[in-house]
Amino acid sequence: MRFLIDFSYSGDGFFGYQKQPGKRTVEQEIEKVLTSINGGKEVIIYASGRTDAKVNALHQKAHFDFDKKITAYKLLGALNSYLPGDIYINDVINVPSNFHARYMVKSKTYEYKINTKTYNPLLRTHVYQYCKPLDINKMKDALKYFIGTHDFTTFTSSEDKRQDKVRTIYEATLTLDDGIITISFIGNGFLKYQIRNMVGSLIKIGEGKVSPDIIPLLLDEKDRKKAHLCAPAEGLTLLDVKY
Amino acid sequence: MRFLIDFSYSGDGFFGYQKQPGKRTVEQEIEKVLTSINGGKEVIIYASGRTDAKVNALHQKAHFDFDKKITAYKLLGALNSYLPGDIYINDVINVPSNFHARYMVKSKTYEYKINTKTYNPLLRTHVYQYCKPLDINKMKDALKYFIGTHDFTTFTSSEDKRQDKVRTIYEATLTLDDGIITISFIGNGFLKYQIRNMVGSLIKIGEGKVSPDIIPLLLDEKDRKKAHLCAPAEGLTLLDVKY
Repeated sequence: MRFLIDFSYSGDGFFGYQKQPGKRTVEQEIEKVLTSINGGKEVIIYASGRTDAKVNALHQKAHFDFDKKITAYKLLGALNSYLPGDIYINDVINVPSNFHARYMVKSKTYEYKINTKTYNPLLRTHVYQYCKPLDINKMKDALKYFIGTHDFTTFTSSEDKRQDKVRTIYEATLTLDDGIITISFIGNGFLKYQIRNMVGSLIKIGEGKVSPDIIPLLLDEKDRKKAHLCAPAEGLTLLDVKY
Repeated sequence: MRFLIDFSYSGDGFFGYQKQPGKRTVEQEIEKVLTSINGGKEVIIYASGRTDAKVNALHQKAHFDFDKKITAYKLLGALNSYLPGDIYINDVINVPSNFHARYMVKSKTYEYKINTKTYNPLLRTHVYQYCKPLDINKMKDALKYFIGTHDFTTFTSSEDKRQDKVRTIYEATLTLDDGIITISFIGNGFLKYQIRNMVGSLIKIGEGKVSPDIIPLLLDEKDRKKAHLCAPAEGLTLLDVKY
């Protein structure tokens, strides 16, 4: 039986999503519990994609195959009773045996949060503590340039070995609430560090150091050395994955 | 020179506020850094009051005496550069030598947060993950009964040895935003576990298990065995202390 899980995690206590020997990762914690529920027979999970160290998720998705006869509902209860408090399974559903959590992704939604007020230790694991004012109107002007289909080479990492750097951003919005800026991106997929690099440039624009019109120029350059600083991982949350 | 500090901490990583041998506490972390800035001569801090293990603070206050000649501004910078990320000093000011951060408190503001939607690991250190709906109108009706001067014996702990259990609550409000209930209390002082016990009863009322009218009866009983369950510490944040 193939199952799809919808799950959340706080990135703070993990060395990222993906398995690494001797390090606490999200993938490893979930596989350990699933393997134990499966009577010790190893279960491998396939997520919609990995997230970097310290990045959070609210509706990450992954599929896996399970031998043991069990209902989705019982599996949900068992997972949440064995998993630690920084991972939570929102839902478990049955999917056809040809379903693939990574290859069938239609869109992903990410959110990046920036605190422009006083450093807040209560929010430090999921909101970047920038703690200075930013010009959100300039940032909004710049954000519009990311919408559409572009070659995002400038905004990715040299570590991203995928040849095709063209991605489509369907929606990008920016809101300010009680000093916290939330920037949301919905796209068909994102390259490594793409959102954090885009946000890095948006911050420079919000500081008034560069003009919003730099974004189309940076996209045209297709040179990752031209981008600004990568924004810190903890501000980023994978909000949803759609199939 | 006597200084007053205004500081924040995330309760999650500490065994409470107060010093305890061999355990990481907020008081200890701040005193360690101050003593080091003071050239090794011990500095003792006097807070407005302690907070229990896992309770958070955004504007806790404490005073201390410092031998070394230093401006409040420089002390602020030095403290924040040496303190860990889960403590932050918002401000340092000079106060008269007869100022006392505990005995001169005029009012304290506390906030208790309850998540009534899906468990959210990102918020678990400062929002109680209750994860079921609550009737906020009933809770609001009940909350009114706490306002004013009352003997709060029913809502304290047997561990609170102070004879006088009479306290005044000036304001108490309840709001709901995106599934998160925030209950605020402003009062001249609070007994041990008082807010968490009041919130425990408010939750029972929100569940529809008891009527809002039970609050005046419970206050009259002056019997702590009559109160409902104490709400978990992590939902509570000391928001402000006024002199």
